[in-house]
Amino acid sequence: MDSASGGTVGAPDEARGTDPADSRTVELAARVEKGDRRAVARALSVVERADTSSRALIALLFPRTGRAHLVGVTGVGGVGKSSLIARLVTEWRRRGKRVGVVAVDPTSAATGGALLGDRIRMEELLADPGVFVRSMATRGAGGGLARATIDATRVFDAAGYDVVVVETIGVGQDQLDVGQVAETIVVVEAPNLGDDVQALKAGLREIADVYAVNKADTGSTDRTVATLRAMLALEGDRDWNPPIVKTSAATGEGIAELADAAEVHLAWLARSRRRAARRRERARAELRRLLQEQLLRDLLGRVGDPDLTAATTAVLGGTDPYRCASELLRRYHG
Amino acid sequence: MDSASGGTVGAPDEARGTDPADSRTVELAARVEKGDRRAVARALSVVERADTSSRALIALLFPRTGRAHLVGVTGVGGVGKSSLIARLVTEWRRRGKRVGVVAVDPTSAATGGALLGDRIRMEELLADPGVFVRSMATRGAGGGLARATIDATRVFDAAGYDVVVVETIGVGQDQLDVGQVAETIVVVEAPNLGDDVQALKAGLREIADVYAVNKADTGSTDRTVATLRAMLALEGDRDWNPPIVKTSAATGEGIAELADAAEVHLAWLARSRRRAARRRERARAELRRLLQEQLLRDLLGRVGDPDLTAATTAVLGGTDPYRCASELLRRYHG
Repeated sequence: MDSASGGTVGAPDEARGTDPADSRTVELAARVEKGDRRAVARALSVVERADTSSRALIALLFPRTGRAHLVGVTGVGGVGKSSLIARLVTEWRRRGKRVGVVAVDPTSAATGGALLGDRIRMEELLADPGVFVRSMATRGAGGGLARATIDATRVFDAAGYDVVVVETIGVGQDQLDVGQVAETIVVVEAPNLGDDVQALKAGLREIADVYAVNKADTGSTDRTVATLRAMLALEGDRDWNPPIVKTSAATGEGIAELADAAEVHLAWLARSRRRAARRRERARAELRRLLQEQLLRDLLGRVGDPDLTAATTAVLGGTDPYRCASELLRRYHG
Repeated sequence: MDSASGGTVGAPDEARGTDPADSRTVELAARVEKGDRRAVARALSVVERADTSSRALIALLFPRTGRAHLVGVTGVGGVGKSSLIARLVTEWRRRGKRVGVVAVDPTSAATGGALLGDRIRMEELLADPGVFVRSMATRGAGGGLARATIDATRVFDAAGYDVVVVETIGVGQDQLDVGQVAETIVVVEAPNLGDDVQALKAGLREIADVYAVNKADTGSTDRTVATLRAMLALEGDRDWNPPIVKTSAATGEGIAELADAAEVHLAWLARSRRRAARRRERARAELRRLLQEQLLRDLLGRVGDPDLTAATTAVLGGTDPYRCASELLRRYHG
């Protein structure tokens, strides 16, 4: 494509940033903004590639975003996130909201099939035109998943979905921090064999805006609720005290309360001006991540594989990696 | 410190790489290499800071590394990793091996205290001079934890520990991929209320060299073992077929077999030349990560906070983040 404009050789797309959109991308964006379901599906496939064409699309859609309520649902495996989300979506539909779901699937293609049973219930919701569910597969390193997930929420947002749910296993997954994509974070916990609250062990405490103690139908949630209460009490009063809601995807218990809690949290975010503050934090974090990705790609474009391989060999030969990295940088950055 | 040599202004330490070591660092490194316990403790504190002084220390220690068997022990919260490691360490001690443990603690200082109960057993091992256990606290973004953990294994390695265990909750935690620090990865699973194998849901399948199905004393591990067997059978024969070992930290069942499995895996790695290949992959991944971190730090040193803040404001005003990131890059990188 056009490479006459830039002075940077080797990674022109990355260095120049967003390409001028071609007419098909412009048309796709226009259809997404009208809420056209097939256009949304296609746009989601475009952003999943996380490449130059997705940038052009997002550049067009970006000014139309910012209206949706971004809800993260997170928790370790086995707590029933997917089933709970299916119930929540049904509740939001009852309240007249259109809902998009981005399910970030930590299982690979190799093993995923057998484990996706609990996603089936969610896919039944696909018959409803006010619901759109999309699974994002984990891909290699380099922040592709984080970028694809963030941009998928933007597609839904620009298409007029009122609530966008992102389902993840929590912090750190393939460089996707749920705090990067959500305004209200629901941490799901289920009663365990032991005394442990797994969400706490997994480091989800700091990010929880609402707790859902799921599988309440099994009747053994009291201890988990008590542990969470005790922990919150120890921490004392804060600006926002995360409510704890007992839920059951099996019976529907607590689902309306959970939807209420998410709405109350959003209202608090807006009232306390924290919604804008969090947006600012998210934008700043995304800029840093994009800068980092682009810098590395730019450098690797110039360094070339032989030099990186030579540096790797030097490390294996006993030169410490900090020195090798610095020497590569010095050579190419001056 | 010395800043006359570099042409890069703003982030001289990062740009120049490893500082020349001062005499205290040289002395500390020499004492670490002799296996001096207090020196090891101090060196671990230095690498935990993940700053310039840790680079100077690692530059000195690095040529003495490469002898230890690096064992990762991972699994979601609640499967009993810490207790299992305590048992394993005892077994390795019986076999005459010195063992260092880096426990990467996902819980923050705020909530960690109450949850560290299962670490107490491990700390009893501290009375044994052939064992050294160190917890690394999760710290902010920017790869600090990954760097500190990798360098902690190097301290143990250079100090002559035969086995270095890294305990983590698995892939992705705060940008620490256990594959970046371990040669043999033990994935721990415990029987669950449901049919799920949580390790699989958490994406740990791809990295497992050995499975430990823990809490065998509860008598309900058969289903978990059967699920894992069925999955491995479906995948067919591979170069290395991960063994599945039933263990119980409570009774000691299976611990010797688990230690055997780790040794057999190491022997296979060496025999098949994969030990060298994996070292090469780890070195390459680390170089990429260091380049990325240093590039970002260097850029942020030059861009300055006001420009990043202005770019953030532009994003909030509707300019898409890709364009803003590219413009920042263009301005500073030419």
